[in-house]
Amino acid sequence: MEPLFELPIVLPPKGSRALLRSVYGQLRDAILDGRLQPDTRLPSTRAFAAAVGVSRNTAMAAYELLLSEGYLAVRPGSGTYVAAISPRPARRPPGEPGSDSRLNEAWRRLPALPGVDDECFPFDFRLGLPDKSAFPFPVWRRLSARALRAWSKTPAVYGQPQGRPALRAAIAKHVSFARAVSCSPEHIVVTAGAQQAFDLLARILVTRGRTVVAVEDPGYPPLRDAFTAAGARLAAIPVDDEGLRVDRLPDEARVICVTPSHQFPLGVTLSAKRRVALLEFAQERGAVVVEDDYDGEFRLGGRPLDALQTLDRTGSVCYVGTFSKSLFPELRLGFVVAPPWALEALVAAKACADWHCQTPSQDTLAAFIGEGHLARHVRKMGRVYAGRRAALLRAVSRHGGDWMHPVGDAVGLHLAAVLSPEIPAGELGSAAAVDGIRLHALERYSAEKPAPNGVVLGYGMIRSDRIDAAIERLAKIISRFE
Amino acid sequence: MEPLFELPIVLPPKGSRALLRSVYGQLRDAILDGRLQPDTRLPSTRAFAAAVGVSRNTAMAAYELLLSEGYLAVRPGSGTYVAAISPRPARRPPGEPGSDSRLNEAWRRLPALPGVDDECFPFDFRLGLPDKSAFPFPVWRRLSARALRAWSKTPAVYGQPQGRPALRAAIAKHVSFARAVSCSPEHIVVTAGAQQAFDLLARILVTRGRTVVAVEDPGYPPLRDAFTAAGARLAAIPVDDEGLRVDRLPDEARVICVTPSHQFPLGVTLSAKRRVALLEFAQERGAVVVEDDYDGEFRLGGRPLDALQTLDRTGSVCYVGTFSKSLFPELRLGFVVAPPWALEALVAAKACADWHCQTPSQDTLAAFIGEGHLARHVRKMGRVYAGRRAALLRAVSRHGGDWMHPVGDAVGLHLAAVLSPEIPAGELGSAAAVDGIRLHALERYSAEKPAPNGVVLGYGMIRSDRIDAAIERLAKIISRFE
Repeated sequence: MEPLFELPIVLPPKGSRALLRSVYGQLRDAILDGRLQPDTRLPSTRAFAAAVGVSRNTAMAAYELLLSEGYLAVRPGSGTYVAAISPRPARRPPGEPGSDSRLNEAWRRLPALPGVDDECFPFDFRLGLPDKSAFPFPVWRRLSARALRAWSKTPAVYGQPQGRPALRAAIAKHVSFARAVSCSPEHIVVTAGAQQAFDLLARILVTRGRTVVAVEDPGYPPLRDAFTAAGARLAAIPVDDEGLRVDRLPDEARVICVTPSHQFPLGVTLSAKRRVALLEFAQERGAVVVEDDYDGEFRLGGRPLDALQTLDRTGSVCYVGTFSKSLFPELRLGFVVAPPWALEALVAAKACADWHCQTPSQDTLAAFIGEGHLARHVRKMGRVYAGRRAALLRAVSRHGGDWMHPVGDAVGLHLAAVLSPEIPAGELGSAAAVDGIRLHALERYSAEKPAPNGVVLGYGMIRSDRIDAAIERLAKIISRFE
Repeated sequence: MEPLFELPIVLPPKGSRALLRSVYGQLRDAILDGRLQPDTRLPSTRAFAAAVGVSRNTAMAAYELLLSEGYLAVRPGSGTYVAAISPRPARRPPGEPGSDSRLNEAWRRLPALPGVDDECFPFDFRLGLPDKSAFPFPVWRRLSARALRAWSKTPAVYGQPQGRPALRAAIAKHVSFARAVSCSPEHIVVTAGAQQAFDLLARILVTRGRTVVAVEDPGYPPLRDAFTAAGARLAAIPVDDEGLRVDRLPDEARVICVTPSHQFPLGVTLSAKRRVALLEFAQERGAVVVEDDYDGEFRLGGRPLDALQTLDRTGSVCYVGTFSKSLFPELRLGFVVAPPWALEALVAAKACADWHCQTPSQDTLAAFIGEGHLARHVRKMGRVYAGRRAALLRAVSRHGGDWMHPVGDAVGLHLAAVLSPEIPAGELGSAAAVDGIRLHALERYSAEKPAPNGVVLGYGMIRSDRIDAAIERLAKIISRFE
């Protein structure tokens, strides 16, 4: 008796297109599980078809597949046999996620994942998000369709890791004008948002376990994550009302990450004196300054401050820009203006990380900038955000002047405010959430030192005419603390 | 006499909008260069305006800016003074690109950058590029416009690092069906192409300087670059006509990168016996298999081979898929089907690398897959590529059967062929380029061992009706070698 008849083959419902797959899969599994042992002779396809109840064609196709994959072997003049395959190992319970020994040490200790925070609050002071409602989407859609059309006519190609030349030219022109950053298109590397810029810079600048990287405290946690992942030894440097305490930089710092135009999250501006001192520090020690200019375009009272990079004459500054605040974060486009010595390594790191950014989006953005829409939108939104900031300051002085003290300069998309000590910011945040107000405590951004007791109020997501009501409501919550 | 009058201020052409910037910039530079020394008293804005030839408003605005940035300081009752800023350092010549001591060791030895190879050849056998000409771009544009419209109505938000749920659901369904990969949406991490998948896996799996990573030789250089950048110790494993020589894996290999469906670049399929042996090897040693299934969907003679992941019952396989071949590389979207123990770390690494992939593109692709366009396109292109492969095999046997021997199975977008020893593949490639034929020698993909003397003929970029003429022309070039 032929062994195969003992193998129960279960057929799918009649007419199923998965018939062949099913028969083939069951045979294969039987071979792999050892139910069909090596060197077992299979019945002829005719006998198999009859026994199992499939057509001869199906039987032949199943045998063919198994032959082509090496599960079966034909012995000329003798028939078809199960090949000499050892049975596959039995299923083993998987290890605990995140603790498996197959992961390297660094990633067994996971950084906290950024949460996706898209719950709706009636009064939303979330940080770092721009208002999309006034964005000229019809223009964007038109340019996007045009870019798609143009690009669909070109043959497939892996693009330049550094970024599309047209986009680099547009960015160079834009930052030269808007931020007085001196650069030309060949200094620019297009990245998937500022986060990739930090990550690539960390890769090329940090020697694991050795390089000391100074970060602002409080500061931007995802930047710390990128440098930690690269193996940096972080040095958390305090911030005061002139920005980063440059005098507190440890001598061995070789990378200094700073938000000179609008300190994240306190909102102060790095003073001119500190700027010069920082560049001097970098030059004397061969250190590199990573300038994160995430929302410096939105100088809300007059001309934007120039970037720190503008003052740099020694190639010490890597300037990081992003379109996440001026356009929207979902676009995932940003850039580095890199000094010549870092350029080649940075481009190689980008190629290694993901080859290049998506082509049609780069072309859409290049056209959007080139036709002047970015500059127009930034101007328009600057007025909008200035109105919101003013409304916020008015509301705070009207409803909460004695317990809430705004700090920082009129730049960007958020305002930090220090609270009286009897109102713990964390508890206020939780209580406010219950009442429909979303705001974050400063401590959320601390690296080592406890942050000042305070909150950060983003005004990218809240309309001017909602702000007074929000702060009035907040004042009522506060009164419960007293 | 007030010192400022000695500072030559050069005004831009009359009516220039850059007047304020120019005046401000010259004052700032003078302060930074030490031409205006700390504690120098500045003239009144009225006197300054008169001396320089600007309006009082411009003078006041310039002073205001310099005050706000801390270059100047007001001493009440006394006037405006240059602040105590030390002059900025003089410009220093930048170091040699790529050798600067500010770069870490790893990135001073740069990996070779992928070239952008978009020159047009009459007969183009380039590797790894799909034919875009038959792609349903009108459908893509329509879905893209729809995704943009839907998404423009939602507030700005940083998305899930793992990828859009709709896209993960669509991918899970697609690979379950097309590649028999067992997975559900929560096992999928959306990446910026396969390259980012390799890069993220390298980050979480490799301990710098310690982890031994086995790669196929010949194999895919950008994958080697990603693992090298993470500090892997590469072990180059030979390939024969059953694929990776699993018996040659060193005991200490902890990551094994393999292209089981269509070995890159030789085109052979990993045999069933080797598949089982490889999974056994991985399970016994706690090693991880990275399965790169870059073009396995294009099984050109019948049903695609199942993925290696299909056989894995121990969570040893990280399956990497990409849309660079089935759609186009410029999209930069791919994915990992990760075992549970690796998932959380992989998502954290993605967040650290660039937060998440672009939202509207993910939504466009989700709709494209969901509406069945991907499956349809892959089916259609499978027929097209099968026709080209057949034409290529016919042409080779007609014009060059004695010197060129195709190897590998009927899968994917390219065909490798071994050449007679008297025809060095590298020289043939150069000679062919002169005659308008682009093809690559196998040695381009070697890690350590010299590759077989042969060429790889990609048929993504060349129409069927051009293939015979191309091979005929190639045969003429060959005849010059003999």
